[in-house]
Amino acid sequence: MNAPQLPQFETLRYAVEDGIATITLHRPEKLNAFTATMMQELIAAFDATDADDAVRCVIVTGSGRAFCAGADLSSGGETFDYAKRLGTSVDAVHRDGGGRVALRIFRSLKPVIGAINGAAVGIGVTMQLPMDIRLASADAKFGFVFGRRGITPEAASSWFLSRVVGISSALEWCFTGRVFSAQEALARGLVRSVHAAEDLLPAAHALAREIADNVAPVSAAIARQMIWRMAGAQHPMEAHRLDSRAIQSRGRSADAAEGVSAFLDKRAAAFPNRVSTDMPDFFDWQSEPPFI
Amino acid sequence: MNAPQLPQFETLRYAVEDGIATITLHRPEKLNAFTATMMQELIAAFDATDADDAVRCVIVTGSGRAFCAGADLSSGGETFDYAKRLGTSVDAVHRDGGGRVALRIFRSLKPVIGAINGAAVGIGVTMQLPMDIRLASADAKFGFVFGRRGITPEAASSWFLSRVVGISSALEWCFTGRVFSAQEALARGLVRSVHAAEDLLPAAHALAREIADNVAPVSAAIARQMIWRMAGAQHPMEAHRLDSRAIQSRGRSADAAEGVSAFLDKRAAAFPNRVSTDMPDFFDWQSEPPFI
Amino acid sequence: MNAPQLPQFETLRYAVEDGIATITLHRPEKLNAFTATMMQELIAAFDATDADDAVRCVIVTGSGRAFCAGADLSSGGETFDYAKRLGTSVDAVHRDGGGRVALRIFRSLKPVIGAINGAAVGIGVTMQLPMDIRLASADAKFGFVFGRRGITPEAASSWFLSRVVGISSALEWCFTGRVFSAQEALARGLVRSVHAAEDLLPAAHALAREIADNVAPVSAAIARQMIWRMAGAQHPMEAHRLDSRAIQSRGRSADAAEGVSAFLDKRAAAFPNRVSTDMPDFFDWQSEPPFI
Repeated sequence: MNAPQLPQFETLRYAVEDGIATITLHRPEKLNAFTATMMQELIAAFDATDADDAVRCVIVTGSGRAFCAGADLSSGGETFDYAKRLGTSVDAVHRDGGGRVALRIFRSLKPVIGAINGAAVGIGVTMQLPMDIRLASADAKFGFVFGRRGITPEAASSWFLSRVVGISSALEWCFTGRVFSAQEALARGLVRSVHAAEDLLPAAHALAREIADNVAPVSAAIARQMIWRMAGAQHPMEAHRLDSRAIQSRGRSADAAEGVSAFLDKRAAAFPNRVSTDMPDFFDWQSEPPFI
Repeated sequence: MNAPQLPQFETLRYAVEDGIATITLHRPEKLNAFTATMMQELIAAFDATDADDAVRCVIVTGSGRAFCAGADLSSGGETFDYAKRLGTSVDAVHRDGGGRVALRIFRSLKPVIGAINGAAVGIGVTMQLPMDIRLASADAKFGFVFGRRGITPEAASSWFLSRVVGISSALEWCFTGRVFSAQEALARGLVRSVHAAEDLLPAAHALAREIADNVAPVSAAIARQMIWRMAGAQHPMEAHRLDSRAIQSRGRSADAAEGVSAFLDKRAAAFPNRVSTDMPDFFDWQSEPPFI
Repeated sequence: MNAPQLPQFETLRYAVEDGIATITLHRPEKLNAFTATMMQELIAAFDATDADDAVRCVIVTGSGRAFCAGADLSSGGETFDYAKRLGTSVDAVHRDGGGRVALRIFRSLKPVIGAINGAAVGIGVTMQLPMDIRLASADAKFGFVFGRRGITPEAASSWFLSRVVGISSALEWCFTGRVFSAQEALARGLVRSVHAAEDLLPAAHALAREIADNVAPVSAAIARQMIWRMAGAQHPMEAHRLDSRAIQSRGRSADAAEGVSAFLDKRAAAFPNRVSTDMPDFFDWQSEPPFI
């Protein structure tokens, strides 16, 4: 079998090894500042990880000393004036680019781990929220700085942030706009653990390994979509409708036969099913409401 | 007055003493593994606690060294193949048994305390999530192991888990499928406190006592349903509609007259109202959306 | 310019200094017990802070040794019998007064900090939940005592409480009705920090200063409404719809031009836009669903 063709990007590095895809924000001379190209490439990168059965887990990190310093401000005071800068009509609704990335990560069929290696402000931190688990370097810094720039939280972060850290921390961070440490991020639940700089990627890889080596890929994809979507659901009956169908569908799968047999035999399971071909069709896993 | 007739079960022990019902999963030779019979009996047990005014609080625990080791795997690789094992049509939607239990506990009119005495994996942990408060023995272990068996989280846990422990821990536990300690469960908020094995039931009883001795039963039943149902509600106006009616209804009750008078007199209150007869009718407390 | 006319209240003190409004519950001889007058005056006070562009942040605290001892019980056992006490028809639905205050605070366009200086029980604690951030004196005590009085949680607290502290603590506090310490409130996330009595207001002011001095008022108002409203939203697309419009609207504002320029110039920003005149009109920020 030929090695698969990996996508090539201008603002990202993209690699797959031993079941783990690593997406690296790669504009180190600009502290990985976010641009329209990076937005499109991040969406394409998650299209690639979803489509590649060799990818069991995704790690997102940054090149150099920053994770992502936020929007590229090289247009100065006009940075966020999309009508003027992009020539779009003032009346047309501009879809926020950070939100397009966030919603794409939300729909990911693979678990996503953020390895936050340095400064992460503005879109640099809001893009992390739809990632499933965040680990930080002790050098990392975070800031929901929108109010200090005269703008507002984006990337659908008003939905995500309170679900990750609770509503009081969400409000405090957006009201003050202050840049805060990895330790504060840990204390309030924004990150799961803090590591010495040289230990960050090894720790992220160890967690990705635990997922890639043990869990059926189709199971992980379904669990991911169920948990994120039910975070906003009104009544647990919505989960019961979905997981009854999921258990019925996966319960008669080759994965379940293998998983239970392997457990009873006290051996590692070799799950045969693949995300590309075996996702059950009782739900459209990539669906989303219209933007309007 | 004759002692009430207690329900008899095959897979559970059921006892009521001094206002506290104790439901004990009782298949100790099988580590209290979950079966279709246990599912039906758990539902019946919560029907019994709701119907019995002598029950002010419910404790759920396990016999022997486990709480519940998960689904009984004696059917091996066919365990979760309901069409084959139960003879149901592949096209008919099978209602997940764990979800039927979880939704029944969700509708409970009595506070529910989980006293987790040992291993609790699969349905053994997801059935705990609609319980209100969990205490664990230092020996307890937990595992959302579904992905390691090739299946998916059930018992409506995709709705419950993120509301109990936040979305990041919910995702990590389901993605890794790992078995984890009572200490990790405590650190991430799955359990409220960890106790030496011999102190677990006494601690659960002390908490149940505090509830049974002090709070009006109808007040507790209404508060339970309001808090669980509002956990998925869109706007606080939904709570305002419900609690305005609740305060109006209970405010003119004999319970309120007694509760306020007892407080002003600095004496214990003796609340006259009962769940069986005095639940206000402005809301159907046992309602749920259809399964579809 | 003349100093603005400040509203005068019977049960509150109201002051504005250096961008910070302080609303002080002021019935110290009654431990600031809540009355119908206090309800109306609290609503009017938040109308005033919203309308006054000189107010960038609001602090709510209590006079004397209590924050608020709950409903005034001088009517004894008839306190919550609104039909009897207020002469309203038993059939008309009484809108809970605590809920009217809570929903008004929910709609606030200014950040709200609770500085909890002493006992806060019943409505004294539930009114705090729609405030954004709570700081407590070491002397503060809290109690969701409704069940001990034979009534039920009000002020829409069944919606707010689980979003602030998680569902298990919400249920435990309402089931036991116990009065608990500032330390327990801190450990479970009800308050952000605990201070010696003499340090409480200085700490609240320091946090208010950080907000007032750094963040554009229109940005803070929009962020506040987005975060609270999205706490109950089903899908992150709802946030994406809202924040795309917010970024587009604020991105071409004078505030954004100033905020980005000031950042690039490494100087403090002087934001020109005002809440009274410059809130974008793509959303009705003060809207709420009908009571029905």
